[in-house]
Amino acid sequence: MPARLQATYHVRADARTIAARAQGIAVEQSVEMPLGAITDDAVLRDVVGEVQDIADLGNGVFTVRIGLAAATIGDDAGQLLNMLFGNTSLHDDVTLHDVELPSPLFPGPSHGEPGMRARLGAATRALTCSALKPQGAPVALLAHLAAQFTLGGIDWIKDDHGMADQPYGRFADRVPACADAVHEASRRTGHPTRYAPSLSGTLETMRRQLALARAAGLDSAVIAPMVAGFATMQALVRENPDFVFLAHPSMAGAARIAPPLLIGRLFRLVGADAVVFPSHGGRFGYTPQTCADLAARARQDWHGLAPAIPVPAGGMTLARVGEILDFYGPHTMVLIGGSLLEARERLAAETAAFTRAVATNSPR
Amino acid sequence: MPARLQATYHVRADARTIAARAQGIAVEQSVEMPLGAITDDAVLRDVVGEVQDIADLGNGVFTVRIGLAAATIGDDAGQLLNMLFGNTSLHDDVTLHDVELPSPLFPGPSHGEPGMRARLGAATRALTCSALKPQGAPVALLAHLAAQFTLGGIDWIKDDHGMADQPYGRFADRVPACADAVHEASRRTGHPTRYAPSLSGTLETMRRQLALARAAGLDSAVIAPMVAGFATMQALVRENPDFVFLAHPSMAGAARIAPPLLIGRLFRLVGADAVVFPSHGGRFGYTPQTCADLAARARQDWHGLAPAIPVPAGGMTLARVGEILDFYGPHTMVLIGGSLLEARERLAAETAAFTRAVATNSPR
Repeated sequence: MPARLQATYHVRADARTIAARAQGIAVEQSVEMPLGAITDDAVLRDVVGEVQDIADLGNGVFTVRIGLAAATIGDDAGQLLNMLFGNTSLHDDVTLHDVELPSPLFPGPSHGEPGMRARLGAATRALTCSALKPQGAPVALLAHLAAQFTLGGIDWIKDDHGMADQPYGRFADRVPACADAVHEASRRTGHPTRYAPSLSGTLETMRRQLALARAAGLDSAVIAPMVAGFATMQALVRENPDFVFLAHPSMAGAARIAPPLLIGRLFRLVGADAVVFPSHGGRFGYTPQTCADLAARARQDWHGLAPAIPVPAGGMTLARVGEILDFYGPHTMVLIGGSLLEARERLAAETAAFTRAVATNSPR
Repeated sequence: MPARLQATYHVRADARTIAARAQGIAVEQSVEMPLGAITDDAVLRDVVGEVQDIADLGNGVFTVRIGLAAATIGDDAGQLLNMLFGNTSLHDDVTLHDVELPSPLFPGPSHGEPGMRARLGAATRALTCSALKPQGAPVALLAHLAAQFTLGGIDWIKDDHGMADQPYGRFADRVPACADAVHEASRRTGHPTRYAPSLSGTLETMRRQLALARAAGLDSAVIAPMVAGFATMQALVRENPDFVFLAHPSMAGAARIAPPLLIGRLFRLVGADAVVFPSHGGRFGYTPQTCADLAARARQDWHGLAPAIPVPAGGMTLARVGEILDFYGPHTMVLIGGSLLEARERLAAETAAFTRAVATNSPR
């Protein structure tokens, strides 16, 4: 018996056609050809996807569980996505809902929440994060903002995911300047604030960026797996076991792969220590249930992988910290970006109010 | 005035809120923070996205055109996708509909349709393509199938996009064997049939795969831009100007970026010489209008880029060749995969019937 992944799809169909639709997905996501044209018995037995279960969810939607041979994926995280949803993503009445694995396939996060807490010396409280922006601002201004966040005692500063290697803000200029500002301010506060620059371009470019970051004394970075490609992220995580990776949901869409699966489970599987996602009540439309499921997936015991810390973001405010922590609990890194920056010259004080609010609303 | 891309989104909203939604997208896809917190005038003037037009399409959908600063993208194709749709992809009531560029930004295909025709010595007729599968079949069987396609006079053979570097079919074993089979059969027919293996993994892995392919006498390859990442594809196209790249739509989704834009325009922009897409009337749900628009985008005069040849696929059959060519015209490469393979031991004859049907239904 070949080892199989169990991929669960939600399919809009009617009761008369669902069996054929399910079989169609099983073929599409494996051999992608008529079974009658397959002459090799081992392929029919070990490679073709198999429909394992069909259940009626009501309202014209069915759950279809397909067993996909793990051998079709090998050790390539890009191929994982290709075989789970590649062609079926082209059917707009199908969503990829969940995946169970026969074995972990990939090692997952190098550090996860425990490793991140160890770096900060923060054992139990929720963590804090903010975002450095806007792109296009002079490097000196960005470095100043990073210093203010640090003086306010923030745990993690992440680059805005729009920051790449633009002519107006070269990675090689921007990142060492911001790193120096953070380190200098951190020496004043005594709190080991981390700064995570955003990676962009190819694997090769990102390797150079990580080398620059390491040379600047940094040990974390932001990556958008759906832009970079899963294989690129997988390689960087493997090659840089000293780095913490924060996954950004850019291009992760809302509609076609369930966010708890994509952001909570798959990003972690490919190595995200922390997963940034748009929390309910902010600028995006995820429901509280989606957010709770996503956070649970990121943290849950699963094949021995380190837990990734969920990072609710996307329009969070200081006034909501209590509510956010009531909802997500302390195994959370709360990200407030633009709303802190609105304090302008009071940024360090506003950040300090944020870190205090998180500390007082967390168990110690 | 900074050079700006014009990105058009379709937004489900009501008339009272659409102006605010449009402004929200302009901010989200540029600085991603409250404008009141931006202290740098140059950022406000040159970097923040600007709402250029809002039009009511009826039925609660609006077209919103946003001017996005080209400088935010620089020369990175991954960043193009990030800035066009990164965070806004998380809103399930917004689709990215179209993009106009102030300049080409990227060089596009190295060869396009004209270069592909020159390799084949086929000046005017439509081109033919089939797919090598199933993954998991022994290498000798795959090489045999490739030879049969070639003996039938096919123009292009592409690997099934599910073929990667699996233990049961290592790229380094499979590709040279299939290349040899194609070249030997090609010497018998006198027709220069091309074989395009499928690339997988990281940029580094793909570079090794391209070197293996080149050493095997090949000059084309298949890549799935949404799995590999745009930046990876961009780098490979730039580094391998002798290669023709066929883009596969795996993970291209159906719902959130208009297929004519993503597959017809953006894949070409990043360097696809040929764009494979699921044609109407097959296994997928694209409408005839979507398919016609996609083909038109791939071919149209646009910033001096070479035209990419549209490759309708996904359940095409020999019986439909006349209809397919009536619909798409001769600047097309028709892909019939599984349906040819169903002929089994008659594969070469069935392929020959396919190539004859395309030739007789095309102007010469």
